[in-house]
Amino acid sequence: MVKLFGFKEKKNVDEALKLFLNEVKVKISEKESLNIEKAVGRILAEDIFSSVNVPHFNRSAVDGYAVKAEDTFGASKANPILLKLSGKVEIGEKSNLKIEKGQAVRVSTGSMLPKGTNAVVKLEDAEEIGEYIEIYKSVAPGENVSKIGEDIKAGEIVLKKGTIIEPHDLGLLATIGVTKVKVLRKPKVAIFSTGNELAPIGSKVEEGQVIETNRLTISAALNEMGCEVVDLGIVKDNIDLIEGNIKIGLKMADAVIISGGTSVGGKDLVPEAIQRVGKLIVHGISMKPGMPTGLAVANGKPIFMLPGFPVAALVSFYTFVPRVIEKMVGFRTVKKKWEKVKVILERRIPSTPGERTFVRVLIRKENNKFIAEPVRISGSGIMSSMVKANAIIIVEEEKEGIEKGEEAEAVLIRPILEQLR
Amino acid sequence: MVKLFGFKEKKNVDEALKLFLNEVKVKISEKESLNIEKAVGRILAEDIFSSVNVPHFNRSAVDGYAVKAEDTFGASKANPILLKLSGKVEIGEKSNLKIEKGQAVRVSTGSMLPKGTNAVVKLEDAEEIGEYIEIYKSVAPGENVSKIGEDIKAGEIVLKKGTIIEPHDLGLLATIGVTKVKVLRKPKVAIFSTGNELAPIGSKVEEGQVIETNRLTISAALNEMGCEVVDLGIVKDNIDLIEGNIKIGLKMADAVIISGGTSVGGKDLVPEAIQRVGKLIVHGISMKPGMPTGLAVANGKPIFMLPGFPVAALVSFYTFVPRVIEKMVGFRTVKKKWEKVKVILERRIPSTPGERTFVRVLIRKENNKFIAEPVRISGSGIMSSMVKANAIIIVEEEKEGIEKGEEAEAVLIRPILEQLR
Repeated sequence: MVKLFGFKEKKNVDEALKLFLNEVKVKISEKESLNIEKAVGRILAEDIFSSVNVPHFNRSAVDGYAVKAEDTFGASKANPILLKLSGKVEIGEKSNLKIEKGQAVRVSTGSMLPKGTNAVVKLEDAEEIGEYIEIYKSVAPGENVSKIGEDIKAGEIVLKKGTIIEPHDLGLLATIGVTKVKVLRKPKVAIFSTGNELAPIGSKVEEGQVIETNRLTISAALNEMGCEVVDLGIVKDNIDLIEGNIKIGLKMADAVIISGGTSVGGKDLVPEAIQRVGKLIVHGISMKPGMPTGLAVANGKPIFMLPGFPVAALVSFYTFVPRVIEKMVGFRTVKKKWEKVKVILERRIPSTPGERTFVRVLIRKENNKFIAEPVRISGSGIMSSMVKANAIIIVEEEKEGIEKGEEAEAVLIRPILEQLR
Repeated sequence: MVKLFGFKEKKNVDEALKLFLNEVKVKISEKESLNIEKAVGRILAEDIFSSVNVPHFNRSAVDGYAVKAEDTFGASKANPILLKLSGKVEIGEKSNLKIEKGQAVRVSTGSMLPKGTNAVVKLEDAEEIGEYIEIYKSVAPGENVSKIGEDIKAGEIVLKKGTIIEPHDLGLLATIGVTKVKVLRKPKVAIFSTGNELAPIGSKVEEGQVIETNRLTISAALNEMGCEVVDLGIVKDNIDLIEGNIKIGLKMADAVIISGGTSVGGKDLVPEAIQRVGKLIVHGISMKPGMPTGLAVANGKPIFMLPGFPVAALVSFYTFVPRVIEKMVGFRTVKKKWEKVKVILERRIPSTPGERTFVRVLIRKENNKFIAEPVRISGSGIMSSMVKANAIIIVEEEKEGIEKGEEAEAVLIRPILEQLR
């Protein structure tokens, strides 16, 4: 009988993966600096501190009248208090007004509070009468004011290393003057296909030849996963050429994918070429399709031998490659952005019946349950509330809040990650 | 009392959305032609037919001996049949051999079958003896052969209009010689912000000013949703400038987003400017944050008035904009790629115990349940099986198939879409 170079000992998928992952030593830590708008979806590689207060001036949170709160104490509809209207601060204007006892200044939402004032009476709680205004409702110091540093305090950490940057993080970054961030560089994967029968895409094929498409599909899948692809082309069934390409791939990338030539026929030279440069850990896996898959390493860098058949190549790719990329970058995604999760409320969420309320919460896993903690400061101007939260609970109009301990559905605005190192 | 331009009649979110969607008439149908590798994630705007057979020659599916099946009938280990070894076909080689009765030819997986042969005896079911081989097992006509057109027949439709192109579609497209496809152009959204207090990103801000960040965050969110952004910058609180920008936006894009100036203060000129060019449908929505949101149309094109406060702007954006984009492109995503869904098996799935089996299935919704139909032709070389399937069921090693009617978990390899037109 013809000698068969059979797969002596087929490993099952989990065993194979475990053996393989133990040998993979690549940990991506190099950083690259990107403009923030290019950094969405990338992994932040530094802690971001704020060097400024947000807001950086006391700002009115409503349209109304900036006052000394003390001047309004005791005011009511029945007993209005009269203040002198001493000017106006436009939105965007730097005011040099200095307000004395008994005076008030017209402000809009977002206006700077003039010196000497510490609260704002809402427009509807006062009435202008010539040069004076009648105040119908007292305000406490700080009422209706967004105070300096209320959103972010100078020196505070605003985004932690390892965060995947989302669109809603950009606003806060730009606000604190950060326009470039350091992110982890993308994992680089080199890929080539082997086989004398393979013709490049777009060529006219003879009988006997097939168009080589695995590099195309797998490159697209790698791009989708956030990897950079180094395309090393098609290589003939020649052991020296294959070895040479593996070496180039190992030099240029963090991992090498070889499509084809992994089976146990006369021309399957890939396993032999790999053994010249590294160590074959598994060859032949109890899976269908994908059985001829091989997994190898050279100096801790992974080498994937994918079957040449397109479906087998894809199944093998998705079974093994993402696990290794996760190890390289140091985390895996447990739940994706926009996924819905059942959570238990750690504190009561208030809401007004008839109004749909979007509550920012921070979810954490505890005893196999997701616990949601409402983010404390949550005004609609407080950008840090979107940065500190990882999910939103939508309280429907017919509900009047959600009680502590009650179950609710939350929509993730960030993925939930599991750290792998 | 100061006259308040209050929100007289706040609509709830669902009412507002319904009224608004009824007035939006934009339907994107313009196509653009892209190289297939750039088309991943885009919506196919044409049916793709194959002009060729795949495979385009009869191909051996195993390593072995190409034979006339009739010559092997009756062969067994005890009663081998002797055939003359009349040559070899290398992978990639166009063979001109013509095989007569009583002859056999050595072939590899992927080799072209020489004329006169119609089946392949596996390597392990035969033994070479000098110029002859002994056959130990009979083969039926077609056995171990990938026949011309087995994967795709010339004239067959391979991808339907409306499909979102996935990495695994690229292989089949390239194989049938399609290197460019027509896809729906991206929805175009114009965006600008209004407010005298707004300073551009990167500028040094005075007291009273704030960095304008809503365009940045919302542009990033729009890009993530597959839209093209037309950035019209920051506009001062001047009704003519605002009106001018709305007109430019309507001319250049399918939708206009305005951030800021939607509230009911003295300087909130956006609603007035909109009424000069279109129709304000809703202004003031029972939601928190996001109450001052306005929704308008001009000639059927949507105009979104988002609050200036960053969190309110984002909540309002995600509540209304995606719904409108869905209407424009004609579908919405019910389940995302890689989501797991519970399915009921329509037919039995066989599998070998000890082997992890990846079964390609087509899932459809019926009576609120997902029914999974295994894709009929599913060899690991059959690319169309990945194109026809929308999910994979993984049968674990310890199972021996999954029975008809049984429940299983499937992983989506395409999103499930709901057509909206």
